[in-house]
Amino acid sequence: MTDELTPTPEDRFSFGLWTVGWAGRDPFGDATRPPLDPVEAVHRLAALGAHGVTFHDDDLFGFDATDSRREAILKRFRQALDATGLKVPMATTNLFTHPVFKDGAFTANDRDVRRFALRKTLRNIDLAVELGAEVYVAWGGREGAESGAAKDVPAALDRLKEAFDLLTAYVHEQRYPLRFAVEPKPNEPRGDILLPTVGHALAFIERLEHPELVGVNPEVGHEQMAGLNVTHGVAQALWSGKLFHIDLNGQSGVKYDQDLRFGAGDLRQAFWLVDLLESAGYRGSRHFDFKPPRTEDPDGVWDSAAGCMRNYLALKARSAAFRADPRVAEALRAARLDDLARPTLAPGETVTTLLADRSAYEEFDVAAAAERGMAFERLDQLAMDHLLGIA
Amino acid sequence: MTDELTPTPEDRFSFGLWTVGWAGRDPFGDATRPPLDPVEAVHRLAALGAHGVTFHDDDLFGFDATDSRREAILKRFRQALDATGLKVPMATTNLFTHPVFKDGAFTANDRDVRRFALRKTLRNIDLAVELGAEVYVAWGGREGAESGAAKDVPAALDRLKEAFDLLTAYVHEQRYPLRFAVEPKPNEPRGDILLPTVGHALAFIERLEHPELVGVNPEVGHEQMAGLNVTHGVAQALWSGKLFHIDLNGQSGVKYDQDLRFGAGDLRQAFWLVDLLESAGYRGSRHFDFKPPRTEDPDGVWDSAAGCMRNYLALKARSAAFRADPRVAEALRAARLDDLARPTLAPGETVTTLLADRSAYEEFDVAAAAERGMAFERLDQLAMDHLLGIA
Amino acid sequence: MTDELTPTPEDRFSFGLWTVGWAGRDPFGDATRPPLDPVEAVHRLAALGAHGVTFHDDDLFGFDATDSRREAILKRFRQALDATGLKVPMATTNLFTHPVFKDGAFTANDRDVRRFALRKTLRNIDLAVELGAEVYVAWGGREGAESGAAKDVPAALDRLKEAFDLLTAYVHEQRYPLRFAVEPKPNEPRGDILLPTVGHALAFIERLEHPELVGVNPEVGHEQMAGLNVTHGVAQALWSGKLFHIDLNGQSGVKYDQDLRFGAGDLRQAFWLVDLLESAGYRGSRHFDFKPPRTEDPDGVWDSAAGCMRNYLALKARSAAFRADPRVAEALRAARLDDLARPTLAPGETVTTLLADRSAYEEFDVAAAAERGMAFERLDQLAMDHLLGIA
Amino acid sequence: MTDELTPTPEDRFSFGLWTVGWAGRDPFGDATRPPLDPVEAVHRLAALGAHGVTFHDDDLFGFDATDSRREAILKRFRQALDATGLKVPMATTNLFTHPVFKDGAFTANDRDVRRFALRKTLRNIDLAVELGAEVYVAWGGREGAESGAAKDVPAALDRLKEAFDLLTAYVHEQRYPLRFAVEPKPNEPRGDILLPTVGHALAFIERLEHPELVGVNPEVGHEQMAGLNVTHGVAQALWSGKLFHIDLNGQSGVKYDQDLRFGAGDLRQAFWLVDLLESAGYRGSRHFDFKPPRTEDPDGVWDSAAGCMRNYLALKARSAAFRADPRVAEALRAARLDDLARPTLAPGETVTTLLADRSAYEEFDVAAAAERGMAFERLDQLAMDHLLGIA
Repeated sequence: MTDELTPTPEDRFSFGLWTVGWAGRDPFGDATRPPLDPVEAVHRLAALGAHGVTFHDDDLFGFDATDSRREAILKRFRQALDATGLKVPMATTNLFTHPVFKDGAFTANDRDVRRFALRKTLRNIDLAVELGAEVYVAWGGREGAESGAAKDVPAALDRLKEAFDLLTAYVHEQRYPLRFAVEPKPNEPRGDILLPTVGHALAFIERLEHPELVGVNPEVGHEQMAGLNVTHGVAQALWSGKLFHIDLNGQSGVKYDQDLRFGAGDLRQAFWLVDLLESAGYRGSRHFDFKPPRTEDPDGVWDSAAGCMRNYLALKARSAAFRADPRVAEALRAARLDDLARPTLAPGETVTTLLADRSAYEEFDVAAAAERGMAFERLDQLAMDHLLGIA
Repeated sequence: MTDELTPTPEDRFSFGLWTVGWAGRDPFGDATRPPLDPVEAVHRLAALGAHGVTFHDDDLFGFDATDSRREAILKRFRQALDATGLKVPMATTNLFTHPVFKDGAFTANDRDVRRFALRKTLRNIDLAVELGAEVYVAWGGREGAESGAAKDVPAALDRLKEAFDLLTAYVHEQRYPLRFAVEPKPNEPRGDILLPTVGHALAFIERLEHPELVGVNPEVGHEQMAGLNVTHGVAQALWSGKLFHIDLNGQSGVKYDQDLRFGAGDLRQAFWLVDLLESAGYRGSRHFDFKPPRTEDPDGVWDSAAGCMRNYLALKARSAAFRADPRVAEALRAARLDDLARPTLAPGETVTTLLADRSAYEEFDVAAAAERGMAFERLDQLAMDHLLGIA
Repeated sequence: MTDELTPTPEDRFSFGLWTVGWAGRDPFGDATRPPLDPVEAVHRLAALGAHGVTFHDDDLFGFDATDSRREAILKRFRQALDATGLKVPMATTNLFTHPVFKDGAFTANDRDVRRFALRKTLRNIDLAVELGAEVYVAWGGREGAESGAAKDVPAALDRLKEAFDLLTAYVHEQRYPLRFAVEPKPNEPRGDILLPTVGHALAFIERLEHPELVGVNPEVGHEQMAGLNVTHGVAQALWSGKLFHIDLNGQSGVKYDQDLRFGAGDLRQAFWLVDLLESAGYRGSRHFDFKPPRTEDPDGVWDSAAGCMRNYLALKARSAAFRADPRVAEALRAARLDDLARPTLAPGETVTTLLADRSAYEEFDVAAAAERGMAFERLDQLAMDHLLGIA
Repeated sequence: MTDELTPTPEDRFSFGLWTVGWAGRDPFGDATRPPLDPVEAVHRLAALGAHGVTFHDDDLFGFDATDSRREAILKRFRQALDATGLKVPMATTNLFTHPVFKDGAFTANDRDVRRFALRKTLRNIDLAVELGAEVYVAWGGREGAESGAAKDVPAALDRLKEAFDLLTAYVHEQRYPLRFAVEPKPNEPRGDILLPTVGHALAFIERLEHPELVGVNPEVGHEQMAGLNVTHGVAQALWSGKLFHIDLNGQSGVKYDQDLRFGAGDLRQAFWLVDLLESAGYRGSRHFDFKPPRTEDPDGVWDSAAGCMRNYLALKARSAAFRADPRVAEALRAARLDDLARPTLAPGETVTTLLADRSAYEEFDVAAAAERGMAFERLDQLAMDHLLGIA
């Protein structure tokens, strides 16, 4: 199984600069690691087998960088990309760290903050496109509230729509080959965040001027912070044609945002998520948005990053074996997954013919149907056997 | 304040037969109360000041009722409605109690169960319309899974869409004045339920053939079971034009489905929800979907039902006083809610002009903006003062 | 690995009659399976490799059984035990199903209900001892409240203490070789249950007349319903000398009580729990308190039961390999687990000598200590590799 | 009601320096407020009506302060205390911010870190006593782990016991009039923290050398982060004679640690908690451990602090009115709270006499007892009426 576990660029793994570069500052503690030079990050990630690196504007430049400093930094960064072959498949804007965004960015009560946030985003979109990014992620981490009257939610959604309508209009006009991916999160750092789940984001997108340019970027831990099944959420995004990007990490249930390495936290949901992504033919990056725990030194950071990819590849191999196992095929039939795949109506059937079908209701043997077992436990144990490598 | 707290039909309060009629059977215990005759329920609810009563087909008839028994029951029920003036603003189908639905109804793996579920629903839709219902609620409580391979979620969503497309086609063809309201729930009785939140349901609706006929029926406790702010979810439903119905009750956080009387559980969220419904001009029923605790005898049941309405009216009065208080108006301005209501772009403004506005970015005084306090705590304390009656 | 995965009585696996016998009635649905004859349960469990069966009084007899019916049932049950060699390592009382216990048993507000509950328990203790049980579990599932004034908690704890003092006095006087194990649970079926976690139960026990006769029976899912790390809770129970019994099952996070088969739910916590039990030399039964999902027919029930044992054995084998791996030994040293095992004070050291040790404070190189990485990610990835079988 | 709502020192309200002094740095954002001079904090708190101020060593001095700087700071602080009459009822140690504590303090795997932590604590205990503190709080926020093998929990509990045994021996020997209060928390900043709830802390204390010197300091939000009823936990602490201190704040359910002002979050639990503290005659400080939201400027900070006290006093007044209402007395009797207060056994009764009492079992009318309603809903609605001021 060794080769399968060694990442290559074909696996399309990417990492945010802010992940391996996280210095370990948390709400109760100071940084435990020194800053990481983005150029070093690029080289280390490439050496580990990643295909891409992603960033917030401020990850590269800092909030206050002058134009000349930006250029200097960018030059070194581009050289590292060229030297390693690493891509920038995605970029995003930091609209949450600076105190000016304390009440949000696109939905800040202060109109001039909203305008500033739009300008900051537009500026980084130009750079993202220049660097070849295909996806622009929008995490509205500060768009929310801690108390009821502080945010008029319908008004805030109007402002949020206004922002996306403007940004998509810009991309459309510029003929940029860029699509947006909204990243939902239920809470933290705000008491409640707008568009708290994949579902809310998908629904919001449908009210935009250019819905075709906007999809979602589900993050494993964010859905799990609401106790939701992340695989189900991603499946609905795929079903809606809206899985434009994905953030992989780990989370141990409903609590603060942990950003564990992928595979840590809920391992079984990680297995099903990989199984879904691989079987659905998802083509985008497998992007890790994790934080190497604060207990780690730089060596630990790279161990943690390597673990993300190793776990993904191991689960991918396990999923492939599971799907190829003839006992599984039989168990899936016993559980009538084939029957679920069949339309409920016969070809050409209408309400009228359904109402006329006495076998569907008047003569349906309810008791016999109720007695049939679904055989889900056998199927799930086969999955467990494959996951554990004891199949 | 006494008169404000006495419910009248103009308040549009409604109750499900299954709420006051709940006999108290729970996963660990047998029923503690005798069955309640629907006719008695109608008379008691009318006497308490409700305007409507709602039902699942099986609440009235039982799953196995013969046609003649249905007719007899229906006759008595209609007489009670006529005698009391109580309306039937909503009806719904029980697709979860009978063992035949153990793996779901519209998304059961067994196709014949799906067809049976559609027929059962169609039959009760006819009755709902006949009784004057304007809304038909669809809670897919069994549409879900406990294990990963047991449900192919995209296939299941296809089946769910097929079901709603058929039902809405029927209503459309029959020219029934009926709209559907999907009721989301994250889990229980299934490990994970499809369309787990208001957001997921709103998004799903957009993929239907007749989205205009389908909205949502948020339930307070269901959103809170996922730790979500129910007022925010309802606000997004309103913003989307999709709040077709609402289920009011109480829930103490992320745990099993409690169905406490309205006001119990998270009282502050209840306040903000009433504030939203009243200020947004929601015109539908205020429907209580609660369960009088199992500790109560029949007297306790009616105390509990009366409490739901009393609490709503008390919160409505408190909200009205809050909104009318000049100090609140001032605090809202201090918190710049007026600024949130203003579009971010000036009339006629485009990306081009925004990019040209140096005051928005290059000359924006970030430090000054960052320093401005939002004054949310003062505003929230005013809300607290009104809620507690100490303003 | 095959042999390791085949359960034998030496593995000390036991099951409650109510687990494999659960008929599938849940809060929203009727039973999906026929009743299971306890005699059949005994034979099936023995055939699967279990060593023990456990029961509530009502599982065997029903709440209302006459003395003669009890005798008849008991005779058949004993014959099955004799025929199979299955033991009864534990028994317990059902103080939650009958409506008389709707407000609790030992802490019911009604004093006569409390007396009845004590008598019901005393009666079954006699039987438990007669059948050879060494542990008597006490799950106070109805000892709690949904509202604040309904239960005076200090008074209720007085009543709970009174009950355990009486029961332990009885066991002491009768010289029964029986110990009690309190089973905590945070909520469901009550809004909040007294002694909600392992910690609360351990603390309560210290206030009893015979603390030496009372320990805890942690249930995996119950601790996880509060978002707690079950392995940490069990470790504290072991540290306190109070792990008298354990209930193994699965739970997917903070939500309703799922009672999944062991291994389902949080697989990584299951791994660490097995690792702890095996390395700590826990000698009691590995008791499965699970519910085969309602979707299963009787075949599925036995698949699910077999899966509990298979998963335990697989995790036990993985844990053994992890602990035997020289790379793990090295990683544990790198993470300074050996240093954690050393007392903080030197032999004979006191506050005075510690205060005099300048190397401990005045001359301690804080910066160097802060810089040292803990190497936890490498260690945890080794555990993951062993769990997945890719080490 | 005005006078009742104005805080005075007799109300025994205290605040941590780190609360009003929190600058607003969170995991995703930089500080939004300037540092607050402790001397200003003392003056402002006194002006608002508080009786006490509390601190971590580093709140006053910073981690690296020289002795002379410590003395200078202390001199100004003492002057402010003298000028205002503010007390220091409690002090504590910061064992979590500096990176040296990244793996814990008393249970850090590194033994020299543990020794350093003990010395840092001993030093501040001397100061605490000198300033008149009666309680020394110990929050072990970093004592925990994110992964299973990183912490050997029984060994860590040994180290934690060693630490408390040393600290209590010191206090005992020095004849300091100081008691310790352990502050539990389930998680954040560690994935899982040792002694996660009030129960775990109470149980741990019983294994110490000087249990009489150690109690608990429950924090409202910390218990609620585990979905637990904080009033129940505090009640068990009181019942155990271990409520040595309390941290009041607000939390909106199971999520990250919010530290809202008291009353925000779960208002009904806040009401019952005040009702318990006041009726149980708790004599310690009412200590607010909250964080004024990051959106607030300094004015907002003081509004938030004032709100904590105002809400406590309002709930205290509401609770007093509730307990004085004759309808409540009647409702409590209807709910048989008087019966709960009576011992279950008659004076002098033993197991033998209970077993002989046929009325308790053989002749007990189970059906009649099961039928009795508990009348909890009426009682709870009376509480709601008082809380809302509509009684």
